[in-house]
This record gives sequence, C-alpha cells and structure tokens, in this order.
Amino acid sequence: MVIVMKAHSTAAEIGAVIARVQEMGANPHPIYGTERTVVAVVGETRYVDRDAFRSMPGVENITTISAPFKLASRESHADDTIIHVNGASIGGRDLAIMAGPCSVESREQLLETAAAVKEAGAQFLRGGAFKPRTSPYSFQGLGLKGLEILAEAREKYGLYVVTEVMTPEAVPMVAEYADILQIGARNIQNYGLLQAVGRVQRPVLLKRGMMSSIEELLMSAEYILAGGNYRVMLCERGIRTFEKYTRNTFDLNAVPVLKQLSHLPVIADPSHGTGRWDIVPAMARAAVAAGADGLIIEVHPHPAEAISDGAQSLTPARFADLMQQLKRVAEAVDRNISTLSDAQAGAETLDGRSAGVGKELPVPA
Amino acid sequence: MVIVMKAHSTAAEIGAVIARVQEMGANPHPIYGTERTVVAVVGETRYVDRDAFRSMPGVENITTISAPFKLASRESHADDTIIHVNGASIGGRDLAIMAGPCSVESREQLLETAAAVKEAGAQFLRGGAFKPRTSPYSFQGLGLKGLEILAEAREKYGLYVVTEVMTPEAVPMVAEYADILQIGARNIQNYGLLQAVGRVQRPVLLKRGMMSSIEELLMSAEYILAGGNYRVMLCERGIRTFEKYTRNTFDLNAVPVLKQLSHLPVIADPSHGTGRWDIVPAMARAAVAAGADGLIIEVHPHPAEAISDGAQSLTPARFADLMQQLKRVAEAVDRNISTLSDAQAGAETLDGRSAGVGKELPVPA
Amino acid sequence: MVIVMKAHSTAAEIGAVIARVQEMGANPHPIYGTERTVVAVVGETRYVDRDAFRSMPGVENITTISAPFKLASRESHADDTIIHVNGASIGGRDLAIMAGPCSVESREQLLETAAAVKEAGAQFLRGGAFKPRTSPYSFQGLGLKGLEILAEAREKYGLYVVTEVMTPEAVPMVAEYADILQIGARNIQNYGLLQAVGRVQRPVLLKRGMMSSIEELLMSAEYILAGGNYRVMLCERGIRTFEKYTRNTFDLNAVPVLKQLSHLPVIADPSHGTGRWDIVPAMARAAVAAGADGLIIEVHPHPAEAISDGAQSLTPARFADLMQQLKRVAEAVDRNISTLSDAQAGAETLDGRSAGVGKELPVPA
Amino acid sequence: MVIVMKAHSTAAEIGAVIARVQEMGANPHPIYGTERTVVAVVGETRYVDRDAFRSMPGVENITTISAPFKLASRESHADDTIIHVNGASIGGRDLAIMAGPCSVESREQLLETAAAVKEAGAQFLRGGAFKPRTSPYSFQGLGLKGLEILAEAREKYGLYVVTEVMTPEAVPMVAEYADILQIGARNIQNYGLLQAVGRVQRPVLLKRGMMSSIEELLMSAEYILAGGNYRVMLCERGIRTFEKYTRNTFDLNAVPVLKQLSHLPVIADPSHGTGRWDIVPAMARAAVAAGADGLIIEVHPHPAEAISDGAQSLTPARFADLMQQLKRVAEAVDRNISTLSDAQAGAETLDGRSAGVGKELPVPA
Repeated sequence: MVIVMKAHSTAAEIGAVIARVQEMGANPHPIYGTERTVVAVVGETRYVDRDAFRSMPGVENITTISAPFKLASRESHADDTIIHVNGASIGGRDLAIMAGPCSVESREQLLETAAAVKEAGAQFLRGGAFKPRTSPYSFQGLGLKGLEILAEAREKYGLYVVTEVMTPEAVPMVAEYADILQIGARNIQNYGLLQAVGRVQRPVLLKRGMMSSIEELLMSAEYILAGGNYRVMLCERGIRTFEKYTRNTFDLNAVPVLKQLSHLPVIADPSHGTGRWDIVPAMARAAVAAGADGLIIEVHPHPAEAISDGAQSLTPARFADLMQQLKRVAEAVDRNISTLSDAQAGAETLDGRSAGVGKELPVPA
Repeated sequence: MVIVMKAHSTAAEIGAVIARVQEMGANPHPIYGTERTVVAVVGETRYVDRDAFRSMPGVENITTISAPFKLASRESHADDTIIHVNGASIGGRDLAIMAGPCSVESREQLLETAAAVKEAGAQFLRGGAFKPRTSPYSFQGLGLKGLEILAEAREKYGLYVVTEVMTPEAVPMVAEYADILQIGARNIQNYGLLQAVGRVQRPVLLKRGMMSSIEELLMSAEYILAGGNYRVMLCERGIRTFEKYTRNTFDLNAVPVLKQLSHLPVIADPSHGTGRWDIVPAMARAAVAAGADGLIIEVHPHPAEAISDGAQSLTPARFADLMQQLKRVAEAVDRNISTLSDAQAGAETLDGRSAGVGKELPVPA
Repeated sequence: MVIVMKAHSTAAEIGAVIARVQEMGANPHPIYGTERTVVAVVGETRYVDRDAFRSMPGVENITTISAPFKLASRESHADDTIIHVNGASIGGRDLAIMAGPCSVESREQLLETAAAVKEAGAQFLRGGAFKPRTSPYSFQGLGLKGLEILAEAREKYGLYVVTEVMTPEAVPMVAEYADILQIGARNIQNYGLLQAVGRVQRPVLLKRGMMSSIEELLMSAEYILAGGNYRVMLCERGIRTFEKYTRNTFDLNAVPVLKQLSHLPVIADPSHGTGRWDIVPAMARAAVAAGADGLIIEVHPHPAEAISDGAQSLTPARFADLMQQLKRVAEAVDRNISTLSDAQAGAETLDGRSAGVGKELPVPA
Repeated sequence: MVIVMKAHSTAAEIGAVIARVQEMGANPHPIYGTERTVVAVVGETRYVDRDAFRSMPGVENITTISAPFKLASRESHADDTIIHVNGASIGGRDLAIMAGPCSVESREQLLETAAAVKEAGAQFLRGGAFKPRTSPYSFQGLGLKGLEILAEAREKYGLYVVTEVMTPEAVPMVAEYADILQIGARNIQNYGLLQAVGRVQRPVLLKRGMMSSIEELLMSAEYILAGGNYRVMLCERGIRTFEKYTRNTFDLNAVPVLKQLSHLPVIADPSHGTGRWDIVPAMARAAVAAGADGLIIEVHPHPAEAISDGAQSLTPARFADLMQQLKRVAEAVDRNISTLSDAQAGAETLDGRSAGVGKELPVPA
C-alpha cells in the first residue's frame, strides 16, 4: 500500500499517517520528494483498512499493491484447482459442458432437454427451480417440484445437476438435490448467501454480477473459500455497459484474466452474456479458444415457448451442431470435450455423489 | 407492447405471433407495412411476458409501452405519497434530513454524532449495525449491540433511526429497533429480502443498486409494495460508470425522473453517491434544488478514524454549516427544513412508534 | 509516480527501472519491502512517460501522483479565471446564461428565439450553424448562412454568440462571427481542432465527451491552453452510461470536481445532459446550487417542429419561468443572474468585440 | 418507426402526429388501443427524422424498426464484401494478419519489426506516423519521416502498410504511402475526416470508438460509403466500461454482431482492446474462433523501451508463437492463415498498388 500525501501536507500530517500505520502493525516507509511525500506501507497489510487513511488530513490518495483476495489468488496456490464432481472433473484438460433450460417449466420439458443435451455430449444439466425475476408478477420457478424433476433427470440420464439457490435458508434443501450450487449474478454480494454456501460441502458456480469488477468477483469467491468450501468455480456471464445491441456485454477478457489471477476454474456463460442465441455459437467457440474450463449454455426444446430467456436459448439441434464445432476448437487449444458413457454416469451419480464430497478438496497454502 | 417482425417474415410466422398474443389474453393488432409487419398488443399486458416473443421465428424485436411497475407508478397514484414516521413526515413540504456515521463503531462515537446532528437540525439518525463489506476480512458491524446503541441514541436525542437490514431472518429483529429499514444497494435484487420487508409494517428506504436502471429500482420497490408494505422511499446513491474520480457517479437526474414516474418519496445520498466529503455539500445543495424529498448524509466526529467510509464523512462542524446552506436552497425552491424539538420527539418516539404503524398508509389505486 | 515491482522481481529488473528513471531526468527512490519493492519517482515527472515502464520486466503497475495537466490545474493558478467576453464576464459572481436552439434553422426561427431569450435575461445566444450528425443523411446545418443569421441576431439584440466549429479549416471563419467557439463532445479528442482553436484569440467552450473522464477533459483543455489561448470554459453535458431513461447521464458531480481541480470556469448543459426538456429545469437549478459558473440551455419557439433535439428544448415561456427560479437559487448560493441592458449591450457588442480580444487574458503561473 | 402516444393523448395530438408523418412523405398507420394509441410509420423512412416527433405534444417515445444505415447493411448487400488490397484479400476465407508497433519510432525499430512479423506470417505492417495522444506533452509521432520509413519497409519486405490519418488535410499525403488508411477510435465521429477518406480510393480500417455503440460504428462507416469509397473494414478495439483491470473492455461480441448486420469485413484489435500483452494471445485466438476476418496486433522488438503502448505489445518471439496457435484455431473454424511469399509480395506491392485501386470495389445494391 502506498499513501500519497498532498502537495502541501505538513510534517504533523505525515507524522500522524506514519503513527497510524504503526498502530495497525505494519511498517511505514516515508519518501520525501521535492513536491510531495509518499508513505509506503510494507509487511502484512491484509488487515490494514485502506479506507482508514483516505480521510486523514493531508492524504491525497492510496494505492493498494497486494491483491485483497488471498485464498482465491494464484499467488497463494500456484496450480490450477481441479474440482471433482463425482465422475467428472472441472478445471483440467477436459472441458465441462453444462446445458439445459433457463427454468424448469415441466417434467416433459426438462426430460426432453436432458435427453437431448446428454445425447449431444453434455455432462451437466442446468435448470432453474428458483428464479430471480425483476418483476414480482413474473414466473418465479417451480421450487421444490423443480428440484425433484431435476433429480429425476439426473438419475435417468446420468447428468450432474447445476441449479441456483437464492436464499440462505434454501441452501440445505437445494444442496440435497444439486451437484453444483449456482449463485446468480444478482446475489454476487448477498453475503449471507455466500457464507451459507461456504458452510456446505457442495461445489459452487459463482456468477459474476453485471456490475462486479473482476476483483469483486474474486472477493465474493473469497467469502465462500474463507467459510471452508474450496470447490468454487468462477463464471463470466456478461456485464452491463452502454452497448444495448446485446443484452449484456459478455466480457470474455475476464476468462484469461481470472486464469492469471486465480487458481479456480473459470466457466463462460455466453447465453446470458449476450442474450442472443444467434451469437451464442460464435462466443462459445471464442470462450473455448480463450481458455475457459467449461461452458454453461441454455438449451430449450421450443425456445419460442420458453417462459424465460427463450431469446438466448439454442434448440437441441443447434446445440448438437455447436458441440461438434466446440470439439474442433478444443483440440486446437489442446483441450478435450469428453462425453460420459451412460453406464458409468448412471452408476456413479447415485452412489458417488455423497461419498465424493469432501475428499478431493484442493487446499490453498 | 409492439412486436416488430423481420423484413421477410412469413404469414405463418406472423400468424403464430398473433395466436400467442391471444392465448395470453391480450389483443393483437397487426399492421402490414411495405417492408415489415408489426403486431401491436393492446389491452392488459402486465401478465404478458415479452421475453416469450423474442425467440419466435420471424420476430425482430419487442417494445414495451406501458410501465412494468404498477403500484409504484405515478399513473396508478397521482398524488405524492407522504410517509409518516411518528412525528415526522417524508414526501411533503418538509425535507427529511438523515445523518450519522456509516457504521456504529462504539457507544461514544454514536452518541457524540447523534448529539451533533440533532443540534444541527437532523431528525433522523443513520448508522449501520450490520455492514455489507466486499472483503470477508473487513469489519462487519456490531450487530445487535449496534442496534441497542442506536435505540439508546433515539431515546436520548429524540431522533428516528434508519439502519440497514441484510438478511430476511434479521428483519424482525432490526424492525424492533429501527424506525426505517434500509435496503442497501447490493441487495437491490435480493428478492427474498425485498419480500421479507414487504411483510412488515415499517417504512423502507430502498437504495438503488450501483448498476440498477431506474426502471429496475421501481420494479424492486414494486416487490415491497406488492407484499403489502406501502411505505417505501426510493434512494439515489450513485451508479457505476467509467468515471473514477468520484467513487460512484451520483445520478442526480434520477431525482426528477423518479418524481415523475412514481408517487413515492425520493431521498438523495450524496455521501455514497460521490464518495468524497469535499463535494458532498455541493451535491447536497444540488439535490435539494432538483427536488429531492430528503437527504441521507454521513457524519462522523473523527472521519480520519472511521472504520469505514471516512473519506465521504463530514465532520459535525461541516454538517452544521451545510445545514445552513441547505435551508437557504430549500427556501428558494419552496421547501422547508424544520427541526424537531427535543421534548416533542422524546415523547413521541417511544409511544408513537408502534402506534403509528399501519394507519397512515397511502393506498395505491 | 510510483512504480510497483512484482512480488518476485529480481535485483536486475529493479536496477533497470532505476536506470530508466535516471535517463529520463528524474530521481528514483527505491523502497525495499518484505514482499515487494516500489520505486518512487520524484522531481519533474511531466515528461516522464509512465507507459514506458509498464512493460519493463518485473513491473507490476504504475501510479501517477501529480496531475498530468499543468496549465489547467488549480495548483498552477490558484484563483478562479474570469473570462471577459466584451461586456460580459464568465467565472465571477455573475452566472453566464446561454440559450437558444440546437440548430439555426431559419432567420425567423433564430430571431424569434433570440428576442425571447434576451427578454428572459440571457446574455448569450447559442445556435449551431455546423451540426455533427450521426447519420450522413441528416440535416447538417445551414453553414455560413447560419453564421450570418447569428451575427444579425447579435447586432439586433445585443447578445453574444456561442456556436460550434467542427474542423480546423473552419476556425477562422467561425471566429469571425462567434464570440465564443464551441468544441462539441464528439470532437473532444480531435487534436487538430483543439490545436487550431488554441491558435486564435477567441474564448472556447469545450464540451466533455460522452466517454471522457474528467482528467481527459482537462487534458484536452491543456491542448488549447498550451497553444496560447487561455480563455477556455469547461462544459459538462452528460456521459454515456447503462441508464437509458435519460439520453445521457448528466454528471453534475463534475461541476464541483472541476472547480476543485481547475481554475477555469465551468458551464453546465442540462439540455444535452439529460435529453429531456421536462427535467431540464430541475437539473438547471441543481447546477446552479452545485456551483456552476453558467448554463447553456436549448430553447426553441416550437420544439415539436425542431429539426434536431426538440425533445430537450424548452419553449420560450418555460425558459422565462426557469430564469425566475434560477434567480432565487442563485441568490441562495451567493451568485447572481444579471441581465444586460439593451443599450449597453448593443453598443459594446459591435465595438468591443475585436478590441476586447487579447487583453484580458488570465495568465497561468 | 413506431410512435407511441401517451396514455391520455388527445385526438388533436394524434392528428398532428399523423399529419407530420404525411408531410415527410411516409404513411402513418394509427392503432387505437384501450389504453394508448400508437402510430406506425410505413414506407420509406430513411429521411424521416425521428427526433422531430419526440417533442410533439402527447408523444411518449419512438421506436425505429429499419436500420438507419443502408449501404453498410447486410440487408442491402447479402454477400460478404471482400476487399482486395493488391495481392491480398480481406473478408474471404483467408484471415488478414496485421502486425507492427504502435508508433514508428525509428528506421531500425520499424525494419526489425517488419522483418520479424513478415517471417512469422503477417501480410500487413501496422505502425503510426501520426499519433493522437491525450497529453499535448507526449510524443506525437514522426510524421512524414515515419511514412517514409513505412514505405521503405513495404518495399523491402513485401508487406502492405496500415497507418493512421488524423486530419482531412493529411489524407492525400497518407494515402500516398499507405495501403490501408486507419481511422482511430477518437476520430470515429470526426465527420470531416470520414468524408475526406470517403473521397479517396484507398481501403479504410475504421476503428470503433471507445464510446461508440455498434450502430454508431455502422453509421460512421455509412459516411465513408456514402462518399463513394466502398472498401471499409470495421475494427473492434475495446469499449470503455467500469472494469479497470483491462485498459478497455474488448467487446468481442461485436464481431459476430457486425457480421450479421453488415457485409463489411471485421477486424479485431486485441492489443488496444485489452491493453495487456499477457492476455492478447488468448483474445486473439478467441477473435478467430468468433469469426473475425483478421487481426491487428501490436508487436515491438523491445516492448520495455516502446515510446507508447509497450504494455500491450508482443515481442517478435511471442508473436511468432501466437501465429502458430492461430493457424490451428483458424483451421478449426474453416478459415486459413496464409503467408505471402517474398517474391510474390515484392513484385506485386510496387506495381500493383496503384493499379489495383478502384477496380475491385464491391458495389452495394
């Protein structure tokens, strides 16, 4: 941390800053320039609150040097974290493909989609049972009934289930049915919820908020890691900008940036990221080329009848076609898209799900 | 709602759109142009999900005409809502001035601040007992202890208390101590929390999220109103933009826009809005001139020692000076800043708080 | 400037940075921390290009301490600059009110507007003869004919003329007719044009670009000042954000920020800033309360027939009403709105315009 | 265009809107709903200025249906435009790879870079002789001397030259030396410059402004096309958002969107787009996977000594390595990266440059 003093700050002001740094247990290092003085702070600064200095008399501004996230950082854990979800692993050479509808709308809709995405090669089935909606008058999801339908699809097709949890109270219930708990973009700074998923042993897919900086996404991951749950995946799903042609601006740059800053797996969501099914294939290919560890893609058997997000959903046929394209791009960047055989998946899903929990955790230094 | 078809859409595609509109209980009205066809939808469209049309074959885009919020809209309730909080009222000629520290740090700090803001003319005391923090390692507030300190200050100085609630579970407890429940910017789309405050009879100060559009802010207010709690204040507190000189971009334009679109009172928060105490006075004056119904301002007796947000806190002396400026600007726009006498406030606070609940509700048509 | 080295930078890398700083004529000051080393650069750093260090091996990032603008900065010139435009002055106690249509559409339209804004108390007449338009098929302004109409209105009503210049070649011609040259938002980084207006002795109204940071606005002003023209006014006119209810987000915070950072007068343009005539009055009052030195407001006798920007234009009656409101707010913040008497204005305008040029320049230290 | 009337608009207001539409030569089509009326405008609306309606009494808002760009649109010209630049073609199966330093700094620097990028397989050499810089005190480029150095490199290595032109006056001179004229991001709405390059027969690389919407980029292209120069390439180079980890937010989504909306070739600039050399390779691969027709990449033999943009420049070795990666990704999406043989290039460059001009223009319908 470097504290920059104003041009005409007094010796007393500089002295007060130095004293405050010492009080916080770090080492101040003043440098007296011709125009200005700066106070460099060295030593352990994780517990030094930079806001505390901002308003001291004579202080101009403050610069942080060390990353404020620790457990999530690549510095603390040099190797890529590989998250094992029963038979599948996320973060290694194999790409994780998650597909399914925005919302679970009915048993028929979900089973039809599950069969199709399985056939096309996906290993993970996505689908919302609890839906955060801007309007209180919109469809809010099937709730528990939706979870049961997801569980049925998992058994039937040997797919792992990714589904959103919206409140701390619902975490145990959703964890009962899901293989991966999704935290949605609007809850990225719902700290009560982050702490709640930090206390369970179930992998978490953490979606970047539409207003979250990359650093804030990592800080929210830090909440979960600090709670003791190390199986966190980061997910880029579009940020809000002035451009309105796409629903959001899918910030694919976040993929290589996150891979540099963190050891956690990074998943890309081109469906929400762009909001337009017609550019989802291009951006899905791009995400693989940029180094994403997986994709989460909306697929709906009848997008025109979807209750939510039909505009960004691929049909099963388009998804199957995309999977063929993705395999080629994956190979070109030395990654792999493997499909799970039915037999293997069916067996492992039911037995292995609980057993697998807690034993393959990557432990940050 | 107007559904715009693509240039070369077929009669079948147009027919399918028309049929779908009818299914949803609204009236389709196709207009066949030389280049394109559009289908206007008239009648009740509140329950028509526009997303449903987006992905139908041949559809180019959709435009909404009616506001998606109903109870919050000026159209449904032409007169300004005046919210009574015991002896005080918000939304009428008198401006509501809320002041205090970002966080309750200690009994001494809070009582010292409360005495000062009361003396300067504020009627409401702000202060966080539960603090949403980006880092899991930062101070998270004093919790229940903080609420007790706030209650003590209320009794002692006859101020009404505004404080944040972060989780649905905490709503009853915080409502016990607070006169106004604050929903913070990061929870603007935490729907479980919005529903929870919609179920209690305690006024709510709803802060716009840093990436919330004005429409989304009104939709989140709609969640609370739809739950049965009609005493909602909207609060502009800065949005996130590319400009980094100010911590956020305080979007003062939202004040006159919200006053047009909605009957709910609008409060301005120049402290979070700008993040710089040195421009808070200018923007507080501007907010009054623009028509805000009140202000919420951070005041700390020793900003340089504040645990959080010191950089945006005024000292008591600067706050007292600002109050004098604000009185002059208020008069210039035919508004008033009145101060509560100690005797009156002390008496009413304790007795009137519960009694006042539920009887002065403005009821939307 | 502070150069932050990476956690594991080598002595050779640090040495190379130190040597490079010395080569550039500044003084390096390394501080060796337990985790990292930083190199503070003191002395004259205006000519040190920080980009040069960004890619040196071992460098993590760079922080600038001194403002990169010099002539425009408050540090270099503590007192407010007052710009004299013949009989009027901008930047002192009196507020400069500039009003008129977006475009000069016809002699009748302009003279009618000029008479009305003069009557209501404006001293400056705005109106575009050359219009930057997004579409090549839109009306591009009357050109020279428009300038002649503006000159006629000036003579007839004793108003000073503010009009836009779009290309370096047109500067001499426009300067012939205008009292103040306007540089539009889209030309904020058209450096050839900035240099061209830096070479003439005619005051310049420099509009912030819709994506310009405050620092970039000051850097563009610096181009003009460095060219020798010290009569520059800064103008806030809205930035581009995600919020789409207003055409732009009028960033009123820029007014107090610019007044702190710079000695140059600051003008607010709530018409372009918001794009909605119905909130222009509220934001014009707010701008005065926030400390703006003047306002530029669009007025059109028949907004519904305006060729451009009718939606943000006030009618003459609404403008006259606004002027009454502004006088009250101005008084509340110890400013003044004075009107120019016809006689005085008529006399000074014609004789004083050329004579006044070049003698009242505020000279930065 | 659809004109939406307010909830309580009167018959007279609706009648005025209808009359105005007719005056403009288009056909109004009113639809009277239970709550509101909308007026659909059919027929030729290119010359109907939607702003004109915005302020008419009773009008709520206006929606445009047809794209406002015509010559640039895919609707007007269904096939991809292939731009021939002598021996090379841009927009077909072969990807155009443009590489070189941000600025031409010296003869040695440029020739060394040219040799390296040629060797690695690039066909186009980029390098700025005229540099738009935020600060008037920064290096502004070598000017004519820089152009001469570029011409020397072209002859010596058989590379085509891409270089920026900043003012209308300089267009003839730069066109003398360059194979492709670059319009920089800050000049995206410098209409005088767009018109000037529209009058010459030299291909143009038009960079999206950091604040330009996709529609505005296409409108600026329309200025050039409308001037008679049909050889325009669109270039995505990053937009400005709240995210500050990357210098800009490289909006790769623009690539597939532009390919849908327009027939013009699309080039991606991951160097400016991200501002960080360490993520340039990932984003360059992603751009190819997303369907870009070419890339423009900064390469500098000694990034740490670059006068500008060193932080985003690859070394020749890293660029050569990237080219190998790109060839693999290109194949995976059925594109090709071909290298120009020295002999062929040397011969064609000098003879073919002028001869090629003007004969291979794709003519929009």
